[in-house]
Amino acid sequence: MASGITKPIYVLSGPNLNLLGQRQPGVYGAKSLADVEGECRSFAAQNGFEIICHQSNHEGDLVSWIHEAGNEGSAVAMNAGAYTHTSVALYDAIKGVDIPVVEVHISNIHAREAFRHHSMIASACLGQVCGFGTNSYTLALRALADHLDSTT
Amino acid sequence: MASGITKPIYVLSGPNLNLLGQRQPGVYGAKSLADVEGECRSFAAQNGFEIICHQSNHEGDLVSWIHEAGNEGSAVAMNAGAYTHTSVALYDAIKGVDIPVVEVHISNIHAREAFRHHSMIASACLGQVCGFGTNSYTLALRALADHLDSTT
Amino acid sequence: MASGITKPIYVLSGPNLNLLGQRQPGVYGAKSLADVEGECRSFAAQNGFEIICHQSNHEGDLVSWIHEAGNEGSAVAMNAGAYTHTSVALYDAIKGVDIPVVEVHISNIHAREAFRHHSMIASACLGQVCGFGTNSYTLALRALADHLDSTT
Amino acid sequence: MASGITKPIYVLSGPNLNLLGQRQPGVYGAKSLADVEGECRSFAAQNGFEIICHQSNHEGDLVSWIHEAGNEGSAVAMNAGAYTHTSVALYDAIKGVDIPVVEVHISNIHAREAFRHHSMIASACLGQVCGFGTNSYTLALRALADHLDSTT
Amino acid sequence: MASGITKPIYVLSGPNLNLLGQRQPGVYGAKSLADVEGECRSFAAQNGFEIICHQSNHEGDLVSWIHEAGNEGSAVAMNAGAYTHTSVALYDAIKGVDIPVVEVHISNIHAREAFRHHSMIASACLGQVCGFGTNSYTLALRALADHLDSTT
Amino acid sequence: MASGITKPIYVLSGPNLNLLGQRQPGVYGAKSLADVEGECRSFAAQNGFEIICHQSNHEGDLVSWIHEAGNEGSAVAMNAGAYTHTSVALYDAIKGVDIPVVEVHISNIHAREAFRHHSMIASACLGQVCGFGTNSYTLALRALADHLDSTT
Amino acid sequence: MASGITKPIYVLSGPNLNLLGQRQPGVYGAKSLADVEGECRSFAAQNGFEIICHQSNHEGDLVSWIHEAGNEGSAVAMNAGAYTHTSVALYDAIKGVDIPVVEVHISNIHAREAFRHHSMIASACLGQVCGFGTNSYTLALRALADHLDSTT
Amino acid sequence: MASGITKPIYVLSGPNLNLLGQRQPGVYGAKSLADVEGECRSFAAQNGFEIICHQSNHEGDLVSWIHEAGNEGSAVAMNAGAYTHTSVALYDAIKGVDIPVVEVHISNIHAREAFRHHSMIASACLGQVCGFGTNSYTLALRALADHLDSTT
Amino acid sequence: MASGITKPIYVLSGPNLNLLGQRQPGVYGAKSLADVEGECRSFAAQNGFEIICHQSNHEGDLVSWIHEAGNEGSAVAMNAGAYTHTSVALYDAIKGVDIPVVEVHISNIHAREAFRHHSMIASACLGQVCGFGTNSYTLALRALADHLDSTT
Amino acid sequence: MASGITKPIYVLSGPNLNLLGQRQPGVYGAKSLADVEGECRSFAAQNGFEIICHQSNHEGDLVSWIHEAGNEGSAVAMNAGAYTHTSVALYDAIKGVDIPVVEVHISNIHAREAFRHHSMIASACLGQVCGFGTNSYTLALRALADHLDSTT
Amino acid sequence: MASGITKPIYVLSGPNLNLLGQRQPGVYGAKSLADVEGECRSFAAQNGFEIICHQSNHEGDLVSWIHEAGNEGSAVAMNAGAYTHTSVALYDAIKGVDIPVVEVHISNIHAREAFRHHSMIASACLGQVCGFGTNSYTLALRALADHLDSTT
Amino acid sequence: MASGITKPIYVLSGPNLNLLGQRQPGVYGAKSLADVEGECRSFAAQNGFEIICHQSNHEGDLVSWIHEAGNEGSAVAMNAGAYTHTSVALYDAIKGVDIPVVEVHISNIHAREAFRHHSMIASACLGQVCGFGTNSYTLALRALADHLDSTT
Repeated sequence: MASGITKPIYVLSGPNLNLLGQRQPGVYGAKSLADVEGECRSFAAQNGFEIICHQSNHEGDLVSWIHEAGNEGSAVAMNAGAYTHTSVALYDAIKGVDIPVVEVHISNIHAREAFRHHSMIASACLGQVCGFGTNSYTLALRALADHLDSTT
Repeated sequence: MASGITKPIYVLSGPNLNLLGQRQPGVYGAKSLADVEGECRSFAAQNGFEIICHQSNHEGDLVSWIHEAGNEGSAVAMNAGAYTHTSVALYDAIKGVDIPVVEVHISNIHAREAFRHHSMIASACLGQVCGFGTNSYTLALRALADHLDSTT
Repeated sequence: MASGITKPIYVLSGPNLNLLGQRQPGVYGAKSLADVEGECRSFAAQNGFEIICHQSNHEGDLVSWIHEAGNEGSAVAMNAGAYTHTSVALYDAIKGVDIPVVEVHISNIHAREAFRHHSMIASACLGQVCGFGTNSYTLALRALADHLDSTT
Repeated sequence: MASGITKPIYVLSGPNLNLLGQRQPGVYGAKSLADVEGECRSFAAQNGFEIICHQSNHEGDLVSWIHEAGNEGSAVAMNAGAYTHTSVALYDAIKGVDIPVVEVHISNIHAREAFRHHSMIASACLGQVCGFGTNSYTLALRALADHLDSTT
Repeated sequence: MASGITKPIYVLSGPNLNLLGQRQPGVYGAKSLADVEGECRSFAAQNGFEIICHQSNHEGDLVSWIHEAGNEGSAVAMNAGAYTHTSVALYDAIKGVDIPVVEVHISNIHAREAFRHHSMIASACLGQVCGFGTNSYTLALRALADHLDSTT
Repeated sequence: MASGITKPIYVLSGPNLNLLGQRQPGVYGAKSLADVEGECRSFAAQNGFEIICHQSNHEGDLVSWIHEAGNEGSAVAMNAGAYTHTSVALYDAIKGVDIPVVEVHISNIHAREAFRHHSMIASACLGQVCGFGTNSYTLALRALADHLDSTT
Repeated sequence: MASGITKPIYVLSGPNLNLLGQRQPGVYGAKSLADVEGECRSFAAQNGFEIICHQSNHEGDLVSWIHEAGNEGSAVAMNAGAYTHTSVALYDAIKGVDIPVVEVHISNIHAREAFRHHSMIASACLGQVCGFGTNSYTLALRALADHLDSTT
Repeated sequence: MASGITKPIYVLSGPNLNLLGQRQPGVYGAKSLADVEGECRSFAAQNGFEIICHQSNHEGDLVSWIHEAGNEGSAVAMNAGAYTHTSVALYDAIKGVDIPVVEVHISNIHAREAFRHHSMIASACLGQVCGFGTNSYTLALRALADHLDSTT
Repeated sequence: MASGITKPIYVLSGPNLNLLGQRQPGVYGAKSLADVEGECRSFAAQNGFEIICHQSNHEGDLVSWIHEAGNEGSAVAMNAGAYTHTSVALYDAIKGVDIPVVEVHISNIHAREAFRHHSMIASACLGQVCGFGTNSYTLALRALADHLDSTT
Repeated sequence: MASGITKPIYVLSGPNLNLLGQRQPGVYGAKSLADVEGECRSFAAQNGFEIICHQSNHEGDLVSWIHEAGNEGSAVAMNAGAYTHTSVALYDAIKGVDIPVVEVHISNIHAREAFRHHSMIASACLGQVCGFGTNSYTLALRALADHLDSTT
Repeated sequence: MASGITKPIYVLSGPNLNLLGQRQPGVYGAKSLADVEGECRSFAAQNGFEIICHQSNHEGDLVSWIHEAGNEGSAVAMNAGAYTHTSVALYDAIKGVDIPVVEVHISNIHAREAFRHHSMIASACLGQVCGFGTNSYTLALRALADHLDSTT
Repeated sequence: MASGITKPIYVLSGPNLNLLGQRQPGVYGAKSLADVEGECRSFAAQNGFEIICHQSNHEGDLVSWIHEAGNEGSAVAMNAGAYTHTSVALYDAIKGVDIPVVEVHISNIHAREAFRHHSMIASACLGQVCGFGTNSYTLALRALADHLDSTT
């Protein structure tokens, strides 16, 4: 499939996602973050666009990568991890760029501890995909690809 | 693509979704519910499974269709509309069946009025897809198809 | 008086209003719903327009009648009864039609139990008339008639 | 029409209503308070009773006029403006007199800022009319006239 | 035992109770609703009165059956299921009839999710029996029979 | 009827229940606590088990009797009175013993002051019987007897 | 009795207290404010000090009299009426003067509507006397007299 | 002065008041509880009635003494100390007796930690006297004496 | 410096600010309100515009002066004192005029009692200057002068 | 090791701790309270000071022992059990004595039910040790011993 | 003008402020951060002191710069951006240094989303300047300069 | 003493703890962080294990060190400083590793500002030691050493 998406989509992962595969596999599954990013890369290749992947435990790094994506990318799929629930800075960063951002979660955040039920960034995002394990990442890329196709 | 999904997936839509295409097109888009169900049917056909579509303005009808799906279907993609935010009965119905249910929303419920930020049914569902316009329905079907494939 | 209102005004009554006259007469008065609808009909006849009256104990019926009024009526005067306080579906239905809806209450809901102080539908309505006994219905029709006259 | 209402009805307006016609015409309309009081006077004349009109930016003045109405009037139609939402003193004044008081609002207070959703005085009043523009005043007078007729 | 209860007691069951025996047997037990209604019927027969049993997933049906019981029955034992926690309409229906209503729950609602701890209808009922499995139904009938005997 | 219940059931009453019959008879009825315990004793005798009755105004005494029942009894029916709503110590005591405890209330606590709507101990108990006057005690004993019979 | 109190004690009464004797006599008693001030004057005369009495429906007047008392009086006994519950201005006025202020209430504010349970000014006052009918005024004067005697 | 009060007034003090004079003298003053009870006794003697004084750190003791006073006393002045803020049992005990109870506090509870601002028992009492140091006890006795005189 | 500001700027001060210099000098400083207004006048003279100063303890006076400023002034610098935290009337007045209003506070309201942390009027104002002692007034005038210069 | 601690340290245990070893061993461990007190005694002996151990299910007993410790002890290590979360009386008792009190918990109260997350007494204590099983007692004694050594 | 300020004032900007001029110009204006820092530098030069400017998206960097300013600067003007509303770490850092910190905001945070109405750091700062666009920075420097002049 | 602890224990300190000894010595004491880490090192040496110490003002660094400890350490004693109260990322990191983490605080966080009373990380930790000054660090190491000894 040939895509009209000429700039890369950023795939950003927040704190503790570097532990993926090791940490609470009952909740987060057995794949490592490298595995997940590999699946994203395959999906992107099949659909004719590029992705750039980053992970950090620092809120400030995620903020900066959103800025970078605003200049050099076409969209962001972001699993902000724990910062999802508290980060006004990420909310502001998303509001500050002109590209769509999709919120991704591996687990169903609405079915876990109460403090995970509210997403501070959701209202700045295009949409949310959560609960489908690491497949949530690919679904978010697909949602973004469809969206970019339909709006260009 | 040949699918191992032998029982139909139910596509359920709640109150006011019969107005789709007429009601607040800036929020919900210009497609009618028949259009959206048509897209779902095409997607299902391409992926080798069947769907059964229902819409009602009655909470009790949605409850009953979930029961029916629990006996005769393999999964449910449900846009419960306004009942999303208040219905303990739907929560209980989902808990009462052994098939996965995915919550679908056309708009990004997290970016609208405060009373739409909380989903009463989310914690009983497998996952949530919201904010991608009527494309959310197809993405939910895909998420369910992937999920059923991976767990069988 | 000749009215420019060519489509009927819907007069909708929600759960338990079929008990009017029997139930807690100290709160709701001694007239039956048929009596009240009769007064509304007289008022409409005097002012040159028609009304269509419905009552149901089902939230879904009220939703559907609002849809019908949106297509075939000029306005709605609705006493949503208990659903006033909890129904997002009615709020969405009112938002989804292009005609004015006035909220009617027989009793002064602000002077009763705390759970009656908040109306879930008020912010979607044109206005509210409450506390004047069954006369609230006629006052709401008058308010609607004046409103329709002034905006056409 | 000859009325049995022998004492005047007070029409009281609270803070900032002296700005009517100048202030936020999108919300409050283009008529001045004098215009509105004129309409009230015409309505009263047609229905055979008198009205006394007052406006003040001082909570204490409104309290005192309610006391005066309790002694020399038959009822009060009051748009307490901003004091609606905070004034225990007005609540107490209304409770302290033996005549019916109707709460009037030009705009639909339930559809505006959250701090306007609660009326401190509503539970002391006979009823509420809101959202019908300056026509709310005349509707409130009519509601009071009907009420006084039915209780005498 | 001969009973002075000459009109039937209504035994009403709300949403999802048609799944009884299938749904979460760890919580709700293995008996079907038909089994439970059979036990109620035996108990009634032993104690010399009749029962009428209904189940619905529709809030409006429960409202209407309470009205019917108000005219044709002597009491109601109701397991309102999920509507227990949110239904103002049921509260109003119970308040609107002159017969005693007892609230029944199979599980101990106070030991489950927080949203089940509050019963919207409890304050309109005579009393509450919960936590004794399907035996709660028979205990509620006994409580009603004792109550009716003691008040006639 | 021969019972398989070989250890006594404790019937515990909390603060102010020594006033039963004197205190607010409109709420609590005219029987004294001795009368009520007498009825419990009759019921137990008819059903082939023994009861041990205690009342205290001291929270600590109730805690200690629950401990004693845990060692020497088969179950507890407890009307914890005012401590129902605040006592973590009673909650812990119930959790700390291996016998079923049923919560009893003479009045319908859900229909009284807001601070009585929440029971601190309910989630540690098997179930709750409330609102049937002093008959609640006997109903609770019956519920316990049925429960013990069905689980042994 | 000779008193060392050389400057007058101010006895201030807030909104609606001019209605005393007419308004809700079941709550506030049958004496007029003039009667109560007369009793205060007698008490003061017997105890060798003077009082100055004022009543106003205007919050600003009460603020100004507290300032005046701060310069020309030895203490204040104030029944701030409705402003008790909302007035930060009175709180600030009391904090801004160097004389003791005692809060007086005729009724037991803690046993009435919830919005009367909190006093905005209480934490700036020396103490509170409430619930003793109009006798609360004299008790407050006595408390102030004792306090002034003990601190001089 | 000869008093018509023929049964004693109970003066009850709650937890930690046995430390009076030692504990936080900046807050509670330098007098011991024996000193304060002595002052109460003198006051009673001068006014022709008797008092009975008790102090306990046990909530249950205070409950029992209120019961005793209900049978053998004419009134209660109670400084419930810490139990003021949490004890439903004391609230029930006061409601359960037919004599007036006055709430006493040495310090101004409204000016201290937030958890002291609410009195659980206030709404069951006749009135409240607080903030006047140990003089609050005598003022409460006087308030009770005046009250008893005026109601007999 | 020549200013293009041709209409005066109003400098309004609310309740208790007439005590400035006397009241809690640790919080509010030693200058009187006349001193502060003098500094404002000097600043205005140096910057080529006029000011009009008013203080009142009455909320209604502040409302009226804002109306006057809306007609005859170019801007308002207002220290609403205690009314800052509760006055919907001032909020409405500011919304009702077309000139910028700046909120001024001598103390840092965010570092004081919790009830001072929220400003009811802030969201209607251009901006806020607080915490710089009486210098806040001059800073607010400068902010207004800069603002008026930049927008004309 | 020779200690300068000449007065005993009180080791107080609250309600249900007499069940230690029997009650929920998964949460509280298998040692009895006697075992734990024995370990405390060994630790004290090794460190040259004495301890006095008490347990009660009565809040009032704990209050009294704190008073006693204030006079005859050098410090208190207290596991107040359930009273930790609700007892203002214990808070006041701790505030009323001049010796350090350390709060001890066997389990990690912050990881259990929400009602255990707040300690009413914590802010009156020197510090808190929780979550280390019965070893928390000895750690608290060590913390107190270190503290007493460093402050004498 | 010669200043006595011998150490530099730090001008710190938090997350997303590097986007200034690009991001939401309707809210934040068209100047870049470099422009704003240039204006600050000019202002400082005119007033005889130096400034040091830093921006970071990392909360930890802002904390460290406050520490540095505490050692090497005379004051801080800080626009903490999104961290304003959540950062306890910044609050602690400000409390941990002995120099005045002024809170700066370009927009009026009180007129935006509810989560921006509370500043976590405000109570640790000297004062706040907000709502004057990028001019807020210079006003804050002026406020600090005046403050430093007046306190040295 | 020979220890079976073969991997080091991490001693992590969060934001502002680098100021220890300089910042608010009344709250945090006079020792520097180096002093405290020195005491920890001595304690570890005496008990036969090693420690690794880190401090950072960056939340992300603490997250990463917990990950590192999960791989290379046996336990963590962490004073997360301000991040204690808000960091979901730290909570997740602790949950994501298989070693025990103990929460340390120098001050008694429960006796300080309300926002310090809740620890976001507490429920993921083994236990908490707080309030013992810098001695809390050593006590936490001891608690960990005892714990590791008892579980291996």
